[in-house]
Amino acid sequence: MNRTRGGSPVKKDLETLTYNDQGLIPAIVQEAGTGEVLMMAYMNRESLEKTLETGETWFYSRSRQQLWHKGETSGHVQQVKRVQVDCDEDTLLLTVVQTGAACHTGEKSCFYRSLEGAGLPAEDQEAAVSPEMAPIIR
Amino acid sequence: MNRTRGGSPVKKDLETLTYNDQGLIPAIVQEAGTGEVLMMAYMNRESLEKTLETGETWFYSRSRQQLWHKGETSGHVQQVKRVQVDCDEDTLLLTVVQTGAACHTGEKSCFYRSLEGAGLPAEDQEAAVSPEMAPIIR
Repeated sequence: MNRTRGGSPVKKDLETLTYNDQGLIPAIVQEAGTGEVLMMAYMNRESLEKTLETGETWFYSRSRQQLWHKGETSGHVQQVKRVQVDCDEDTLLLTVVQTGAACHTGEKSCFYRSLEGAGLPAEDQEAAVSPEMAPIIR
Repeated sequence: MNRTRGGSPVKKDLETLTYNDQGLIPAIVQEAGTGEVLMMAYMNRESLEKTLETGETWFYSRSRQQLWHKGETSGHVQQVKRVQVDCDEDTLLLTVVQTGAACHTGEKSCFYRSLEGAGLPAEDQEAAVSPEMAPIIR
Protein backbone atom coordinates (compact mmCIF):
# COMPACT_ATOMS: atom_id res chain seq x y z
CA MET A 1 0.00 0.00 0.00
CA ASN A 2 1.76 3.09 -1.17
CA ARG A 3 -0.58 5.58 -2.74
CA THR A 4 -0.32 9.29 -2.70
CA ARG A 5 -3.74 10.77 -3.38
CA GLY A 6 -7.17 10.99 -1.88
CA GLY A 7 -5.89 10.60 1.63
CA SER A 8 -5.07 6.91 1.25
CA PRO A 9 -2.26 5.83 3.56
CA VAL A 10 1.20 6.45 2.15
CA LYS A 11 4.55 5.16 3.32
CA LYS A 12 6.50 8.31 3.90
CA ASP A 13 10.06 9.09 4.80
CA LEU A 14 9.48 10.91 8.05
CA GLU A 15 12.74 12.77 7.48
CA THR A 16 11.13 14.67 4.62
CA LEU A 17 8.42 16.25 6.76
CA THR A 18 9.03 19.87 7.60
CA TYR A 19 10.07 20.22 11.22
CA ASN A 20 10.62 23.64 12.76
CA ASP A 21 14.00 24.91 13.92
CA GLN A 22 13.55 22.91 17.13
CA GLY A 23 12.92 19.71 15.18
CA LEU A 24 9.22 19.74 16.00
CA ILE A 25 6.02 19.48 14.00
CA PRO A 26 2.61 20.52 15.41
CA ALA A 27 0.07 17.71 15.75
CA ILE A 28 -3.63 18.50 15.99
CA VAL A 29 -5.59 15.82 17.83
CA GLN A 30 -9.22 15.28 16.82
CA GLU A 31 -11.65 12.82 18.36
CA ALA A 32 -12.97 10.06 16.11
CA GLY A 33 -16.73 10.11 15.87
CA THR A 34 -17.48 13.54 17.27
CA GLY A 35 -14.82 15.39 15.29
CA GLU A 36 -14.09 17.49 18.36
CA VAL A 37 -10.61 19.02 18.35
CA LEU A 38 -9.13 17.94 21.65
CA MET A 39 -5.66 19.48 21.80
CA MET A 40 -2.58 20.41 19.89
CA ALA A 41 0.90 19.30 20.86
CA TYR A 42 4.29 18.89 19.23
CA MET A 43 6.05 15.82 17.92
CA ASN A 44 9.62 15.25 16.90
CA ARG A 45 10.57 12.53 14.43
CA GLU A 46 11.09 10.00 17.21
CA SER A 47 7.72 10.60 18.86
CA LEU A 48 5.99 10.42 15.48
CA GLU A 49 7.70 7.08 14.81
CA LYS A 50 6.58 5.77 18.20
CA THR A 51 3.04 6.97 17.51
CA LEU A 52 2.92 5.19 14.15
CA GLU A 53 4.47 2.03 15.60
CA THR A 54 2.44 1.76 18.79
CA GLY A 55 -0.90 3.25 17.73
CA GLU A 56 -0.93 5.53 20.78
CA THR A 57 0.11 9.18 20.84
CA TRP A 58 3.62 10.18 21.81
CA PHE A 59 4.60 13.84 21.82
CA TYR A 60 7.66 15.87 22.63
CA SER A 61 7.29 17.99 25.74
CA ARG A 62 8.92 21.36 25.13
CA SER A 63 8.88 22.21 28.84
CA ARG A 64 10.34 18.91 30.01
CA GLN A 65 12.42 18.43 26.86
CA GLN A 66 11.61 14.77 26.60
CA LEU A 67 9.28 12.34 24.88
CA TRP A 68 5.86 12.15 26.42
CA HIS A 69 3.53 9.18 26.11
CA LYS A 70 0.12 10.81 26.47
CA GLY A 71 -1.80 9.15 29.29
CA GLU A 72 1.17 7.30 30.72
CA THR A 73 0.47 8.63 34.22
CA SER A 74 -3.20 9.70 33.91
CA GLY A 75 -4.34 6.68 31.93
CA HIS A 76 -5.88 9.08 29.43
CA VAL A 77 -4.28 7.49 26.40
CA GLN A 78 -5.21 8.25 22.82
CA GLN A 79 -5.66 5.34 20.44
CA VAL A 80 -4.68 6.57 17.00
CA LYS A 81 -6.99 5.75 14.09
CA ARG A 82 -5.37 7.91 11.44
CA VAL A 83 -2.45 10.30 10.94
CA GLN A 84 -2.76 12.87 8.17
CA VAL A 85 -0.26 15.39 6.89
CA ASP A 86 -1.10 18.72 5.33
CA CYS A 87 -0.24 20.01 1.86
CA ASP A 88 3.11 21.53 2.80
CA GLU A 89 3.94 18.75 5.24
CA ASP A 90 4.51 20.93 8.27
CA THR A 91 1.43 19.99 10.31
CA LEU A 92 -0.12 16.67 11.36
CA LEU A 93 -3.74 15.80 12.09
CA LEU A 94 -4.39 12.74 14.26
CA THR A 95 -7.79 11.10 14.62
CA VAL A 96 -7.98 9.32 17.97
CA VAL A 97 -10.18 7.48 20.39
CA GLN A 98 -9.68 9.37 23.65
CA THR A 99 -9.76 7.63 27.01
CA GLY A 100 -10.92 10.08 29.70
CA ALA A 101 -10.18 13.77 29.33
CA ALA A 102 -7.64 15.06 26.86
CA CYS A 103 -6.89 18.22 28.85
CA HIS A 104 -4.84 18.27 32.03
CA THR A 105 -7.51 20.57 33.56
CA GLY A 106 -10.01 17.71 33.44
CA GLU A 107 -11.93 19.29 30.54
CA LYS A 108 -12.53 16.91 27.68
CA SER A 109 -10.90 19.29 25.20
CA CYS A 110 -8.20 21.89 25.80
CA PHE A 111 -10.32 24.34 23.78
CA TYR A 112 -13.00 25.08 26.39
CA ARG A 113 -12.99 28.88 26.18
CA SER A 114 -14.12 31.18 23.39
CA LEU A 115 -12.94 34.68 22.59
CA GLU A 116 -15.33 37.55 21.99
CA GLY A 117 -15.15 39.44 18.75
CA ALA A 118 -17.12 42.35 17.32
CA GLY A 119 -17.25 40.54 13.99
CA LEU A 120 -18.40 37.22 15.42
CA PRO A 121 -22.01 36.16 15.89
CA ALA A 122 -22.51 36.32 19.66
CA GLU A 123 -25.53 34.03 19.64
CA ASP A 124 -23.76 31.37 17.63
CA GLN A 125 -20.83 31.53 19.97
CA GLU A 126 -23.07 31.07 22.97
CA ALA A 127 -25.13 28.31 21.40
CA ALA A 128 -22.07 26.54 20.13
CA VAL A 129 -20.62 26.09 23.55
CA SER A 130 -23.70 24.98 25.43
CA PRO A 131 -22.70 21.78 27.21
CA GLU A 132 -25.99 20.23 26.12
CA MET A 133 -25.03 20.59 22.49
CA ALA A 134 -22.83 18.51 20.27
CA PRO A 135 -19.28 19.87 20.29
CA ILE A 136 -19.51 20.84 16.65
CA ILE A 137 -21.60 23.74 15.43
CA ARG A 138 -24.37 22.47 13.14
CA MET B 1 -20.35 39.54 28.63
CA ASN B 2 -17.19 38.51 30.37
CA ARG B 3 -17.28 34.95 31.58
CA THR B 4 -14.42 32.61 31.84
CA ARG B 5 -15.72 29.06 31.98
CA GLY B 6 -17.62 26.59 29.87
CA GLY B 7 -16.41 28.04 26.63
CA SER B 8 -18.64 31.12 26.84
CA PRO B 9 -17.14 34.09 25.01
CA VAL B 10 -14.69 36.07 27.09
CA LYS B 11 -13.19 39.47 26.48
CA LYS B 12 -9.50 38.79 26.56
CA ASP B 13 -6.43 40.93 26.41
CA LEU B 14 -4.87 39.54 23.26
CA GLU B 15 -1.46 40.58 24.61
CA THR B 16 -1.68 37.89 27.26
CA LEU B 17 -1.91 35.03 24.78
CA THR B 18 1.30 33.09 24.38
CA TYR B 19 2.93 33.91 21.06
CA ASN B 20 6.08 32.10 19.95
CA ASP B 21 9.43 33.79 19.56
CA GLN B 22 8.31 35.08 16.17
CA GLY B 23 5.20 36.65 17.70
CA LEU B 24 2.94 34.00 16.19
CA ILE B 25 0.25 31.68 17.51
CA PRO B 26 -0.96 28.63 15.57
CA ALA B 27 -4.61 28.72 14.51
CA ILE B 28 -6.44 25.51 13.63
CA VAL B 29 -9.33 26.07 11.23
CA GLN B 30 -12.30 23.71 11.49
CA GLU B 31 -15.39 23.74 9.29
CA ALA B 32 -18.70 24.46 11.01
CA GLY B 33 -21.20 21.67 10.52
CA THR B 34 -18.93 18.91 9.31
CA GLY B 35 -16.20 19.41 11.91
CA GLU B 36 -13.59 18.78 9.21
CA VAL B 37 -10.21 20.28 10.03
CA LEU B 38 -9.38 22.37 6.99
CA MET B 39 -5.95 23.85 7.65
CA MET B 40 -3.59 25.30 10.19
CA ALA B 41 -1.94 28.67 9.80
CA TYR B 42 -0.32 31.26 12.02
CA MET B 43 -1.64 34.53 13.38
CA ASN B 44 0.10 37.43 15.00
CA ARG B 45 -1.73 39.75 17.37
CA GLU B 46 -2.68 42.11 14.55
CA SER B 47 -4.16 39.38 12.33
CA LEU B 48 -6.08 37.97 15.29
CA GLU B 49 -7.50 41.42 16.00
CA LYS B 50 -8.54 41.78 12.36
CA THR B 51 -10.14 38.34 12.46
CA LEU B 52 -12.16 39.19 15.57
CA GLU B 53 -13.16 42.60 14.17
CA THR B 54 -14.08 41.55 10.64
CA GLY B 55 -15.40 38.03 11.17
CA GLU B 56 -13.18 36.71 8.38
CA THR B 57 -9.84 34.98 8.83
CA TRP B 58 -6.60 36.92 8.64
CA PHE B 59 -3.29 35.15 9.11
CA TYR B 60 0.37 36.07 9.09
CA SER B 61 2.25 34.61 6.15
CA ARG B 62 5.66 33.45 7.34
CA SER B 63 6.98 33.14 3.77
CA ARG B 64 5.77 36.56 2.63
CA GLN B 65 6.17 38.12 6.07
CA GLN B 66 2.92 40.01 5.86
CA LEU B 67 -0.71 39.83 6.89
CA TRP B 68 -2.81 37.59 4.72
CA HIS B 69 -6.56 37.90 4.33
CA LYS B 70 -7.55 34.34 3.47
CA GLY B 71 -9.49 34.31 0.19
CA GLU B 72 -8.61 37.86 -0.78
CA THR B 73 -7.43 36.74 -4.25
CA SER B 74 -9.13 33.31 -4.55
CA GLY B 75 -12.46 34.37 -3.09
CA HIS B 76 -12.20 31.40 -0.72
CA VAL B 77 -12.88 33.39 2.41
CA GLN B 78 -13.63 31.91 5.79
CA GLN B 79 -16.51 33.36 7.78
CA VAL B 80 -15.62 32.95 11.45
CA LYS B 81 -18.29 31.59 13.78
CA ARG B 82 -16.16 31.06 16.86
CA VAL B 83 -12.61 31.53 18.11
CA GLN B 84 -11.46 29.32 20.96
CA VAL B 85 -8.23 29.31 22.93
CA ASP B 86 -6.65 26.30 24.57
CA CYS B 87 -5.80 25.75 28.22
CA ASP B 88 -2.32 27.22 28.07
CA GLU B 89 -3.32 29.94 25.62
CA ASP B 90 -0.77 29.12 22.94
CA THR B 91 -3.12 27.69 20.27
CA LEU B 92 -6.34 28.93 18.68
CA LEU B 93 -9.22 26.95 17.19
CA LEU B 94 -11.46 28.73 14.70
CA THR B 95 -14.81 27.40 13.55
CA VAL B 96 -15.60 28.76 10.10
CA VAL B 97 -17.94 28.61 7.14
CA GLN B 98 -15.59 27.96 4.22
CA THR B 99 -16.28 29.37 0.77
CA GLY B 100 -14.73 27.07 -1.87
CA ALA B 101 -11.63 25.06 -1.06
CA ALA B 102 -9.48 25.84 1.95
CA CYS B 103 -6.32 24.39 0.40
CA HIS B 104 -4.31 26.13 -2.31
CA THR B 105 -4.11 22.76 -4.13
CA GLY B 106 -7.85 22.86 -4.72
CA GLU B 107 -8.52 20.15 -2.13
CA LYS B 108 -11.20 21.09 0.36
CA SER B 109 -8.87 20.46 3.29
CA CYS B 110 -5.09 20.69 3.44
CA PHE B 111 -5.09 17.31 5.22
CA TYR B 112 -5.83 15.10 2.22
CA ARG B 113 -3.10 12.49 2.75
CA SER B 114 -2.69 9.86 5.46
CA LEU B 115 0.48 8.27 6.77
CA GLU B 116 0.90 4.54 7.12
CA GLY B 117 1.76 3.09 10.48
CA ALA B 118 2.31 -0.42 11.74
CA GLY B 119 0.29 0.42 14.83
CA LEU B 120 -2.61 1.99 12.94
CA PRO B 121 -5.68 0.10 11.72
CA ALA B 122 -5.23 -0.06 7.95
CA GLU B 123 -8.90 -0.73 7.27
CA ASP B 124 -10.04 2.22 9.33
CA GLN B 125 -7.55 4.43 7.58
CA GLU B 126 -8.85 3.34 4.19
CA ALA B 127 -12.49 3.61 5.15
CA ALA B 128 -11.96 6.96 6.77
CA VAL B 129 -10.73 8.57 3.60
CA SER B 130 -13.29 7.20 1.16
CA PRO B 131 -14.70 10.21 -0.67
CA GLU B 132 -18.19 8.78 -0.23
CA MET B 133 -17.89 9.02 3.52
CA ALA B 134 -18.32 11.89 5.89
CA PRO B 135 -14.98 13.55 6.57
CA ILE B 136 -15.05 12.41 10.17
CA ILE B 137 -14.50 8.81 11.17
CA ARG B 138 -17.64 7.39 12.77
